[in-house]
Amino acid sequence: MSKNGLLYQRIAHNIEHQIQHEVLRVGDKLPSIRMICREHGVSMSTALQAYYDLESKGLIESRPQSGYYVTYSHKFFPAMPETSNPVYHADASGTDGLVAKVYAELGRETNLTFSLGVPAPELLPVAKLNKTMINAMRLLPAGGTSYEQVQGNSKLRQQIARWSFSWEGHLRESDLLTTAGCMNALAYSLMALTERGDQIVVESPVYFGVLQLARSLGLQVLELPTHAITGIDLEALKKTLQTKKIKACLLVSNFSNPLGSCMPDEHKREAVRLMETHGVPLIEDDLYGDVYFGQHRPKSCKTYDESGIVLWCGSVSKTLAPGYRVGWVAPGRFKEQVIRTKLYHSVSSTTLTQEAIASFLETGRYESHLRKLRHTLHTNSLQYLRAIGEYFPEETRVSRPEGGFLLWLELPKQIDTIKLYETALKFKISIAPGRMFTLQNQYNHCIRLSYGLLWNEQVERALKLLGNLARKMF
Amino acid sequence: MSKNGLLYQRIAHNIEHQIQHEVLRVGDKLPSIRMICREHGVSMSTALQAYYDLESKGLIESRPQSGYYVTYSHKFFPAMPETSNPVYHADASGTDGLVAKVYAELGRETNLTFSLGVPAPELLPVAKLNKTMINAMRLLPAGGTSYEQVQGNSKLRQQIARWSFSWEGHLRESDLLTTAGCMNALAYSLMALTERGDQIVVESPVYFGVLQLARSLGLQVLELPTHAITGIDLEALKKTLQTKKIKACLLVSNFSNPLGSCMPDEHKREAVRLMETHGVPLIEDDLYGDVYFGQHRPKSCKTYDESGIVLWCGSVSKTLAPGYRVGWVAPGRFKEQVIRTKLYHSVSSTTLTQEAIASFLETGRYESHLRKLRHTLHTNSLQYLRAIGEYFPEETRVSRPEGGFLLWLELPKQIDTIKLYETALKFKISIAPGRMFTLQNQYNHCIRLSYGLLWNEQVERALKLLGNLARKMF
Repeated sequence: MSKNGLLYQRIAHNIEHQIQHEVLRVGDKLPSIRMICREHGVSMSTALQAYYDLESKGLIESRPQSGYYVTYSHKFFPAMPETSNPVYHADASGTDGLVAKVYAELGRETNLTFSLGVPAPELLPVAKLNKTMINAMRLLPAGGTSYEQVQGNSKLRQQIARWSFSWEGHLRESDLLTTAGCMNALAYSLMALTERGDQIVVESPVYFGVLQLARSLGLQVLELPTHAITGIDLEALKKTLQTKKIKACLLVSNFSNPLGSCMPDEHKREAVRLMETHGVPLIEDDLYGDVYFGQHRPKSCKTYDESGIVLWCGSVSKTLAPGYRVGWVAPGRFKEQVIRTKLYHSVSSTTLTQEAIASFLETGRYESHLRKLRHTLHTNSLQYLRAIGEYFPEETRVSRPEGGFLLWLELPKQIDTIKLYETALKFKISIAPGRMFTLQNQYNHCIRLSYGLLWNEQVERALKLLGNLARKMF
Repeated sequence: MSKNGLLYQRIAHNIEHQIQHEVLRVGDKLPSIRMICREHGVSMSTALQAYYDLESKGLIESRPQSGYYVTYSHKFFPAMPETSNPVYHADASGTDGLVAKVYAELGRETNLTFSLGVPAPELLPVAKLNKTMINAMRLLPAGGTSYEQVQGNSKLRQQIARWSFSWEGHLRESDLLTTAGCMNALAYSLMALTERGDQIVVESPVYFGVLQLARSLGLQVLELPTHAITGIDLEALKKTLQTKKIKACLLVSNFSNPLGSCMPDEHKREAVRLMETHGVPLIEDDLYGDVYFGQHRPKSCKTYDESGIVLWCGSVSKTLAPGYRVGWVAPGRFKEQVIRTKLYHSVSSTTLTQEAIASFLETGRYESHLRKLRHTLHTNSLQYLRAIGEYFPEETRVSRPEGGFLLWLELPKQIDTIKLYETALKFKISIAPGRMFTLQNQYNHCIRLSYGLLWNEQVERALKLLGNLARKMF
């Protein structure tokens, strides 16, 4: 990061902080550019950059011949959802049909897909990735046509280990195993740890892919209450571990899917302590951790893992290239089992894409790409929140994630979001109905919206339309 | 294929046929080049090419100022193994330790690896693949960074469907699902069809990867008697299906690993009939089918499948690029289950490598590469057979595969091939001990040798050394 970059961001962050804490309120005039220059001892262009930054997030606006004014108040934003209170293990009814339907629609390119938790292709560094891939072909023996070792590309594991210092992880290359994306890491972990009939614990609402995987492995899934800011309810987790035979716990610690929750450090530490006490492995899905909107990357549960009870999983599918299928797991004390599972099911991972991603990390391109991506997504999330507050029924509650790609909306109870999904589809808009994120009969009035798309008028119009459709159903 | 190419091959094939059937015997003088030209109405260079071809296979030799002479007799070749008589379901003891050890050694590049069933990198069209990959990056939206649809690249499935006509398969694009290599196809098939505790049937000896996969899924494996030429014993298969509850049967129909057997058409038809009668799915591992040494590609069991009971699996890992992880399965009537299993475990396959392989097939490059590869491997197999006949203990029996990469050797019973493996390793030669290919205590005097390496003096010396080591243990 250039010095200049750091400066303008620091200034913008200070002002943002004051707006969030209502030191500056809607309508307040901001210091002039000239004053910013004097106060912070920075150049005109740095000061302007800070204001552009705040403007792009919808926090302030420039009024011609007058200056900059605060336009944002979090009071204007919809309320947050309360801690979920999921049905406890009633008759588990599958959602395969619904999920399959939503997935099938994704193939049609005319849709505006709010239903996919990935960045739009326009947000990805495609040209740079292509270059890196061509280099990988030149560098690798036999152009990358040979089998990779089972544990995975050693340079890639080295880079992920280096990267783990950003969340105080202190991993070593030998701790890691590469996989074909993060779901694949979760699959190998669950297969290595569980048998048909075992019980596992997850958040609620929870990513439907986890539910499908668990069911296909014959596992019983306990969905626990979860808060939209702090994640899984630790009291509920503790009680469950004390009273039931749990084989594994699977949590998305940072910017969960779909709730967007991020466990505070203390919760992470406590969760790991609970797991150790009860001897239950924690599969930590940390695939959104690098997409934080704050100053620092949040830590992982793995940060607090001293006994190797955490299997930390990640990928570049949410930040660089979903189609490369590059993910990984640091399986702690379960390493040998997970490596064997990978070997038996797929021999090795794709040689070329691993090498390309390794180089991308090694050369620092990943970091500079992430910086832009985070900024765009943060801005997007604020724009979405504003639009939802404007267009959706007043009672709508919305999560306020500090990272990731996803908003969780609780609409008024009367609204059946499967019907909303079907109606929206006629307008070529795809959303993910809440019922997908549970095995129980609940969340029927919720939806998950992805803000991974480029923000533009078309998106604003689509959100307005969605809001109107919801109002009509109310 | 050029007209000239066809001509010289036809001439060489005729002479080879005469040698195999002893119309021409060791020491016989062959017609002069001039005579070949006159008889067949071909050019000098075509006639020479035919003789070069036969010479490279070790069938004939040129003697200075005298002409060409037959040097080969299949009588000089070691005897074939008899139908295996495997232990029926005694206490199944794992071989994970042994396999892991052999695998670990493979990483060391100094080794001469007879233990890997893949072609040497020198036999792969690396430059052409690189070009195809670069084109794929240019053609694909977002450079192939986006998720591929679950069922897999549609052009690739189309090409595999087209290719299926070479074995009278008549597949359609929609019948196929891509996977991360052939083991991955077997894994998804087994997961979709079986549950922990189920019994499955395989050949014996059988590829250790299949044993490991089955055990990791908690399956009981029945190893059935298998003939080195005709494959699984159909009587034994029939009896097993009649008397036991079998959930699936997994066969390598063409050039099996490790035996090299190729089921005759009638056996294939009969096997499918048996499966239909008993309602047991047949997982057909046909990953070596394209590497045939005869005039035509052998058919598959799938060729005779009218009810959709065969799950036909393949890949390009044995012919083009193991590291690309491109495989597939045509799961017949089990399609939906297998697609779901893939979706839950890995979302989708690597976008780029699928597209590159699709183009490689589409442009006819695959076919022209295969022609060279088959020729090289056929030649290799004959050279190996000769060398083994020359250097190994006299009682050694060797399979005589009509395709694929692998020889199965039965050494004298007294020879412990795990010890032979360990001794050979000191000379940086890696072989696969027979004990890897069974869960029972058997095949302790057998080894599997791959002839996927480039034939040269170093290989000949290594085989000589191996033979001497075996003789010493005798």
